[in-house]
Amino acid sequence: MAEQQTLYAASLDDIRAAAERIRGHAHITPVLTSTTLDRLAGHKLKFKCEIFQKGGAFKFRGAFNSVQQLSPEQAEKGVVTHRQVLLCSGNHAAALALAAQLRGIPAYIVVPNNAPACKLAAVKEYGGSLILCEPTMAAREATAAKVAGETGATFVPPYDYGPVIAGQGTIGLELLQQVPELDVVVVPVSGGGMLSGITLAAKALKPGIVVIAAEPCGSNDAADVAASKRAGQLVTDLPKPVTIADGLQARLGQHTWPVVRDLVDGVVAISDAEIVAAMQLLFERMKLVVEPSGAAGLAAVLSKDFAAELAKARAHTAARAAGSDTAAAAAAAGSQLAGDGSHDQQQQLNVGVILCGGNLDFKDFWKLDNWQPAH
Amino acid sequence: MAEQQTLYAASLDDIRAAAERIRGHAHITPVLTSTTLDRLAGHKLKFKCEIFQKGGAFKFRGAFNSVQQLSPEQAEKGVVTHRQVLLCSGNHAAALALAAQLRGIPAYIVVPNNAPACKLAAVKEYGGSLILCEPTMAAREATAAKVAGETGATFVPPYDYGPVIAGQGTIGLELLQQVPELDVVVVPVSGGGMLSGITLAAKALKPGIVVIAAEPCGSNDAADVAASKRAGQLVTDLPKPVTIADGLQARLGQHTWPVVRDLVDGVVAISDAEIVAAMQLLFERMKLVVEPSGAAGLAAVLSKDFAAELAKARAHTAARAAGSDTAAAAAAAGSQLAGDGSHDQQQQLNVGVILCGGNLDFKDFWKLDNWQPAH
Repeated sequence: MAEQQTLYAASLDDIRAAAERIRGHAHITPVLTSTTLDRLAGHKLKFKCEIFQKGGAFKFRGAFNSVQQLSPEQAEKGVVTHRQVLLCSGNHAAALALAAQLRGIPAYIVVPNNAPACKLAAVKEYGGSLILCEPTMAAREATAAKVAGETGATFVPPYDYGPVIAGQGTIGLELLQQVPELDVVVVPVSGGGMLSGITLAAKALKPGIVVIAAEPCGSNDAADVAASKRAGQLVTDLPKPVTIADGLQARLGQHTWPVVRDLVDGVVAISDAEIVAAMQLLFERMKLVVEPSGAAGLAAVLSKDFAAELAKARAHTAARAAGSDTAAAAAAAGSQLAGDGSHDQQQQLNVGVILCGGNLDFKDFWKLDNWQPAH
Repeated sequence: MAEQQTLYAASLDDIRAAAERIRGHAHITPVLTSTTLDRLAGHKLKFKCEIFQKGGAFKFRGAFNSVQQLSPEQAEKGVVTHRQVLLCSGNHAAALALAAQLRGIPAYIVVPNNAPACKLAAVKEYGGSLILCEPTMAAREATAAKVAGETGATFVPPYDYGPVIAGQGTIGLELLQQVPELDVVVVPVSGGGMLSGITLAAKALKPGIVVIAAEPCGSNDAADVAASKRAGQLVTDLPKPVTIADGLQARLGQHTWPVVRDLVDGVVAISDAEIVAAMQLLFERMKLVVEPSGAAGLAAVLSKDFAAELAKARAHTAARAAGSDTAAAAAAAGSQLAGDGSHDQQQQLNVGVILCGGNLDFKDFWKLDNWQPAH
């Protein structure tokens, strides 16, 4: 395992160093449980609450780690990133602005000139400089490169970048300290920064752990992680998924794909209806505000496909642990095991579920007008 | 203090005995903090999260304590209560049904025949027997008495009852164990069961602590706690407040009023707009689902009247601690102190805020139709 990790964008040592850097700056988020949801899932669910992280999502970990890793000379010139839309969810741009503010250095955030003003507030609040450009990917990349050239600022990509991956990996370190008996961890996936960071940490510390990605397929059936895993190579020709989980629309990159390819044991594709049902359970039963992207992990655990995918993934993990790395053999073993996945008979496992973000706007979603005083 | 408590419906010993009874059955709810809300309030806020209590509100404590205190002979015949409406919020009837189910005894819940069916679900889920009656207070009381007569069941009122008050008082015990440095506690008030329980516990353990009630005045300006405190006697001729805080519409009773009269140091009346603003902050900044009644404490802390009321209450507490129990002298001292209550100059105190319930229906309040997948 130790040698294997040198193949990837972050090693266990990198993740441990990130944990040292963020200590006292990022929150050690709590792990919550619910007997009602355990009953529904048939497993003992351990909810890792990144909704309580600084900024309301996990993104601060990677951004802070990236900014802290800069040398004094680099740092002085600041950091730059670009975003299509400054989404509520998992806002790398806002997290980077905050991390830069905490180090007292400039942050340049390139955004398309059609981005809604309200989404720019967090970046401004954290003292980031907004730079507007034409609303195309090419314009954003060109503008970011121009800003970097002019200012000497370091480009910090949102996910496909070692220091970001190492920072997000600290979630995995923490979770295994909090729940050493963890058997499985279910992680929402977008560009794969959080997924690959957690996977690298978890597999290094506990090779027998099973990692399952939760991916929205969207109404246009555009789940690139599942498709790439099936094909054994990175599938890049799928459109962006049309989904309520607006934080999960990025695509795997060159640094995240190898981790997903080699170390992630399964993928459960989920629908928007499943995501909203999971949000509702978290809201009503656990009293937690979780955005659609953040609820994807619970949606996967409660999906009808979970038991079969888990059985396959466990067989895959066991086969790898036994020294056989043949996916085909593992899949064959998995399809035998899958028959045992029915709810009543299944073995209760300790399943970590990452609630990765909770940034919802109360007034956007709340039916205040339907809500009358009681007489 | 020790002798004084014998005047009231529950003593510190009663509350400690209740804590022993509920141990392992009720949750020890966490205390959460938020630097953003501390900055807004100018104090260090300690949120006691009864939203995470069994049943989603504090009511389980008092109901469970009441059921457990019954002798085997009494218990066998069950318990009975009545409710005007089975509100989401602070549902004593559902909590009683659950507590009865856990002891394996019958619970008879008398409700008006116009209660919405959806509100009866929790009682049924917990195995309670629903008994319908005409939708008047007289019919409910008569029906409950009839059920008690026929079955021998013990009537367990929602708040004006020693064992319920002692049960709710365990919140105060826990909070002072969790935050021994607490200076002030702010408690939503309806019938006063929770308020008087917490007050009895907190004042017995820490006589210098300041207790402030948070009371919705409603659009019809019907704050009976504030009016009763001003009058020095129980004001019973005010109508029910018309407020979004549907769990805070009951009136003080004969057992709760003496505690409120003698030991509660101040009352802050709050509007529905303040309550909704507090809910929004808890939702967006702390990612917590808190119902209107549950958010009343934070609404009071953020109200423009809080600083002045706190200064008066502190003077009142100090005067009582110094042996003078003259409210007039205290009030005079308070109005001098109140001038120091401006946000910039004020002393930062450790202020406990009880988030007493989180029972909101996702689909009732959520604008699902405004919520489109992102392209």
